[in-house]
Amino acid sequence: MTLSPDSLIDFRSDTVTRPDSVMREAMAKAEVGDNVLDGDPTTAALEQRAAKLLGMPAALWTPSGTMANLIALSLHLQRGDRFLAPRGSHVITDELGSAAWLAGGMADPLEHDAGPGRPTPDTLSAAIGTPIGPYYSLRTTLLCLENTHNSAGGAVTPPDEHAQLLAVAKQAGLTVHLDGARLWHAAVALRVPPAALTVGVDSVSACFSKGLGAPVGSVLAGSAEFIERARRMRQMLGGGVRQSGVLAAACLVALDRIDELAETHENAARLAAGLAEHGWEVNEPETNIVLAAAPDLQGRLKLLDGLGIRVLPTAGRVRFVVHRDLSAADIEETLHRIRTGS
Amino acid sequence: MTLSPDSLIDFRSDTVTRPDSVMREAMAKAEVGDNVLDGDPTTAALEQRAAKLLGMPAALWTPSGTMANLIALSLHLQRGDRFLAPRGSHVITDELGSAAWLAGGMADPLEHDAGPGRPTPDTLSAAIGTPIGPYYSLRTTLLCLENTHNSAGGAVTPPDEHAQLLAVAKQAGLTVHLDGARLWHAAVALRVPPAALTVGVDSVSACFSKGLGAPVGSVLAGSAEFIERARRMRQMLGGGVRQSGVLAAACLVALDRIDELAETHENAARLAAGLAEHGWEVNEPETNIVLAAAPDLQGRLKLLDGLGIRVLPTAGRVRFVVHRDLSAADIEETLHRIRTGS
Amino acid sequence: MTLSPDSLIDFRSDTVTRPDSVMREAMAKAEVGDNVLDGDPTTAALEQRAAKLLGMPAALWTPSGTMANLIALSLHLQRGDRFLAPRGSHVITDELGSAAWLAGGMADPLEHDAGPGRPTPDTLSAAIGTPIGPYYSLRTTLLCLENTHNSAGGAVTPPDEHAQLLAVAKQAGLTVHLDGARLWHAAVALRVPPAALTVGVDSVSACFSKGLGAPVGSVLAGSAEFIERARRMRQMLGGGVRQSGVLAAACLVALDRIDELAETHENAARLAAGLAEHGWEVNEPETNIVLAAAPDLQGRLKLLDGLGIRVLPTAGRVRFVVHRDLSAADIEETLHRIRTGS
Amino acid sequence: MTLSPDSLIDFRSDTVTRPDSVMREAMAKAEVGDNVLDGDPTTAALEQRAAKLLGMPAALWTPSGTMANLIALSLHLQRGDRFLAPRGSHVITDELGSAAWLAGGMADPLEHDAGPGRPTPDTLSAAIGTPIGPYYSLRTTLLCLENTHNSAGGAVTPPDEHAQLLAVAKQAGLTVHLDGARLWHAAVALRVPPAALTVGVDSVSACFSKGLGAPVGSVLAGSAEFIERARRMRQMLGGGVRQSGVLAAACLVALDRIDELAETHENAARLAAGLAEHGWEVNEPETNIVLAAAPDLQGRLKLLDGLGIRVLPTAGRVRFVVHRDLSAADIEETLHRIRTGS
Repeated sequence: MTLSPDSLIDFRSDTVTRPDSVMREAMAKAEVGDNVLDGDPTTAALEQRAAKLLGMPAALWTPSGTMANLIALSLHLQRGDRFLAPRGSHVITDELGSAAWLAGGMADPLEHDAGPGRPTPDTLSAAIGTPIGPYYSLRTTLLCLENTHNSAGGAVTPPDEHAQLLAVAKQAGLTVHLDGARLWHAAVALRVPPAALTVGVDSVSACFSKGLGAPVGSVLAGSAEFIERARRMRQMLGGGVRQSGVLAAACLVALDRIDELAETHENAARLAAGLAEHGWEVNEPETNIVLAAAPDLQGRLKLLDGLGIRVLPTAGRVRFVVHRDLSAADIEETLHRIRTGS
Repeated sequence: MTLSPDSLIDFRSDTVTRPDSVMREAMAKAEVGDNVLDGDPTTAALEQRAAKLLGMPAALWTPSGTMANLIALSLHLQRGDRFLAPRGSHVITDELGSAAWLAGGMADPLEHDAGPGRPTPDTLSAAIGTPIGPYYSLRTTLLCLENTHNSAGGAVTPPDEHAQLLAVAKQAGLTVHLDGARLWHAAVALRVPPAALTVGVDSVSACFSKGLGAPVGSVLAGSAEFIERARRMRQMLGGGVRQSGVLAAACLVALDRIDELAETHENAARLAAGLAEHGWEVNEPETNIVLAAAPDLQGRLKLLDGLGIRVLPTAGRVRFVVHRDLSAADIEETLHRIRTGS
Repeated sequence: MTLSPDSLIDFRSDTVTRPDSVMREAMAKAEVGDNVLDGDPTTAALEQRAAKLLGMPAALWTPSGTMANLIALSLHLQRGDRFLAPRGSHVITDELGSAAWLAGGMADPLEHDAGPGRPTPDTLSAAIGTPIGPYYSLRTTLLCLENTHNSAGGAVTPPDEHAQLLAVAKQAGLTVHLDGARLWHAAVALRVPPAALTVGVDSVSACFSKGLGAPVGSVLAGSAEFIERARRMRQMLGGGVRQSGVLAAACLVALDRIDELAETHENAARLAAGLAEHGWEVNEPETNIVLAAAPDLQGRLKLLDGLGIRVLPTAGRVRFVVHRDLSAADIEETLHRIRTGS
Repeated sequence: MTLSPDSLIDFRSDTVTRPDSVMREAMAKAEVGDNVLDGDPTTAALEQRAAKLLGMPAALWTPSGTMANLIALSLHLQRGDRFLAPRGSHVITDELGSAAWLAGGMADPLEHDAGPGRPTPDTLSAAIGTPIGPYYSLRTTLLCLENTHNSAGGAVTPPDEHAQLLAVAKQAGLTVHLDGARLWHAAVALRVPPAALTVGVDSVSACFSKGLGAPVGSVLAGSAEFIERARRMRQMLGGGVRQSGVLAAACLVALDRIDELAETHENAARLAAGLAEHGWEVNEPETNIVLAAAPDLQGRLKLLDGLGIRVLPTAGRVRFVVHRDLSAADIEETLHRIRTGS
């Protein structure tokens, strides 16, 4: 899809993508069943395929990534347990505190001293301290990683760093959950299969509606026993739905499109380069998110708005999220508008 | 749809209905947007139509009736508040205790002394006692009604009884939530508009996937201010999804079909009559649910299973739920199988 | 202590008793330590003695019976689990809903069809239904008994009935907690050791400030492993205090006085007989609580107030709680005032 | 009290202090009542005196500082709200995660960039960001300060810095709770009345068992309306006790002794100077806590243990807490043992 010159260009999130005709046809033809009572065949097919892709024994469809993470934290954490996650992680910053209220977890953010979104093993080790002290001590029992790390600009943690963090966590007896909402991006950027990025984790969530274009749906993967408990927790939270196959069908189509993310990443790189030429200070995007800073940010935001370029501000920067509903031509149009101021 | 003689006939729940081609086409054509960021136009249309039908100022789509109820209870209850509901209500019995764990409410069931699913105003009044006592007293702050009452056999509370219960509750300062998962059934059975059954309540939930055939979706309705808070709570629970229009489109079709429930009710009455002729003790179904008892229930369950008739046992009885995917011919086929034992 | 004719006579609760000089001296001389860091020697002595008396391996002092019950329920219940307790049990009615909010439990009250405060085994069995059903079913995992049952009038459950209820609960896989706030009363009334009333339970709470005269303190008893978890939960709730020996010393004195409850029970019997002579409809008190009904209850309450007789209304009756700070002469004075109206 | 040369010298915490004879006599003579039903006169007297000292309209006795903080956070926070506190604050690190599990709060620690225990106003302002964003945003609603800051070494926040932090918090609409477990220390160190350190806060907790020698008891102060809600929350948590006057009497004696903390601070300064002479790297203690680092910490810990000097390790340092049960002579004895290695 290429936008006309006067169209809005929407960089606010990769969740704004809309299902295309292929996806819609799959939804219309999906074989369905009652997923609370019997299981739904298309949902089951998705769960099996996702589990395999993620290198885990079992998986469970959920309506959102927030719910997938919430289920994982609720099952991993005992009341009041402390969990660690890189600063700005979605489970800390973007899920309305459900990790505390519902999962009962005491959050503690880790600094990104190894690079964007990435704490060093030493930082992790120091933060863990003694995971289980005397009876009157806070217990640290969970590490939540996020790959790619959204608020750090779609930042990728490579397998070797992942392995080092896992080693520290496991030695200290911690459980590890991976928020892989955009794990597909990391895999494509690193040219590894997604399962290479989940080695050693106890659970992983992944989304079909972020970047891949499905309208609704995420998945939580883990051991078979964990997923059975997750199914119950999903029901308790109100995420047990009936003929979910109509949604799962779209998610299956989404999985066919993982490789196409490479094009999205190229577009993001082109956008970043273009913005840099026009006076923005940008990250070198590792995947699909460009974080851009500039003097007089409020003024620039107003300008972008006037140009029909939609973005979201985030902690002193502007976030441009590139996605599959934006073509290379759309990126050029964006830069054209910025260049010409019209 | 009429089943072939050797097909399974599924009376386990009215949630087993599948979206038909009209519904699927509506889904395929639905206009959509990002419902977390901007709102989704089809979802918004559904919410407006549902609010109007339910006689409330505003409404919010949710993935399930369980989530709609959970949101309502979480917003209505303060920590530890006691709530009253007819014994066997879905919020007490069928939502995995989320009313306690998540909403923090202390449940107290009311006996059905006015009829199936229906406590008398005196029973309610006695149960309320003093709603707000000294600081060290449990507070009773919420009444949850359910119309039709599922586990009581799809039992209908008529408007005059509803009004009497509301009067007692409101005089005692209680908030009232109505679980209207099958409110459409009650309205059709009583030949009144749904809004006639929500008079005075603070919130009402209703489902599109129970009886009306939509694959996924419910709605919570209440004041505009309440719905804004509900939107936040939905997000926290992981029920905020993106292009929900693909589901809302099916729900809109479902709303076109409320009147067709009358045929479902006729089928339920025919089934009950037929079962009575074959030695079952049945309720006179008020809507679409037949509760049937018999000596040697385990034996009969086995027999039904052998005949391809799927049911669920429930507290010493068998529950036959009639729904739109079962035609009058299917009912006759059911009775034929029972009569002939084959 | 005998009251002067114009003194208030306080029947509101057996919690109004005050520590006497013996108790105060014990408190003044108590050996103490930091009970969070090291343990406090007097508290440890109390816990050992209480555990032995209650027939359990270990025990933990708590500031209140409410906290002892709350700790037990929080440890026994998983999120959303249903628990059963006789209607009007303290954990349901008198702890501000903490069983729901904090312990996450879905309450379901049992009728008293075996006698005051006592459900029959059949009622219990029917209420349990299937304790663990399919994944989407509410789980019933805990039975809470209360002996004596406060709101049922200090009603005693004898060992044989206790055993029958335990048998049903255990067969269904339920955990059993006994709220023994007034277990000492039951033991004295039945002339059995307290441990005879805890057979088979997983945990039991008991109070030193109800009837025995200690100013502050209760105990929770169970397995050694359970008590270690309880110690942590107590700390989390803010019940971990430092030199608790000053309070435990009073509790130890209280334990010396269990046998004196027999006199309290005689006084309660005398009070009940006297009230019956003056037109009250009374229970035959099994321990120390007289529930008295009369026509024009509001008028009578006003009258009692004018006579300096303090009572609390409770569900259509007046509760007279007899305790160690009321002598036989105080009972006669009470009846004298009622008889003479002055 | 001066220790004999072979006695243990306990620097683990200022909670190890024991009530002396004056305190015990006050407890033995305390006038008491049922503090759940009527209020207890000695407790009421303590609450009034503490409220006045703290410059707040009302106060509530609690069994522990942990419970006082927990009540405050539970009342100030809505489900999932984010709260800010200096890194290592007691509410984050030392209360077993109750701020998350029970109060439902999402913690975020602030760095100490203004000095030990003290974030700058800029750090606070940056951390707040936008306190109330769109409906799907985490809300930041509470700032928790701690004065003195325990884990930062009894560090004092002076009134002017306090005022600047309050100004930032209030401008952003945040509520402010002050954990004043050791506020008396800060007041003595600064030579200001305690009320000078609570200006603008919505609630403050303070302890009588830390440094002042009372065996059990803390207080929460705030508006009259807040304290009424706190009374209910205390009851729900199991902190409502009966004749609390026996404890409050000791707390009243403790309040007479605030000025004596100056001697404790001198002793801490002497200890720090002495430790520095023996190769420890120490903070300059602002109140009663000395944090000491040294190479081969494990070796030194073992050495101290062999010398009968009890300390607790804390994040790479050793914590010496000086308190009223340690005299100037005890400090000299401590240094003597270290100097002579015997």
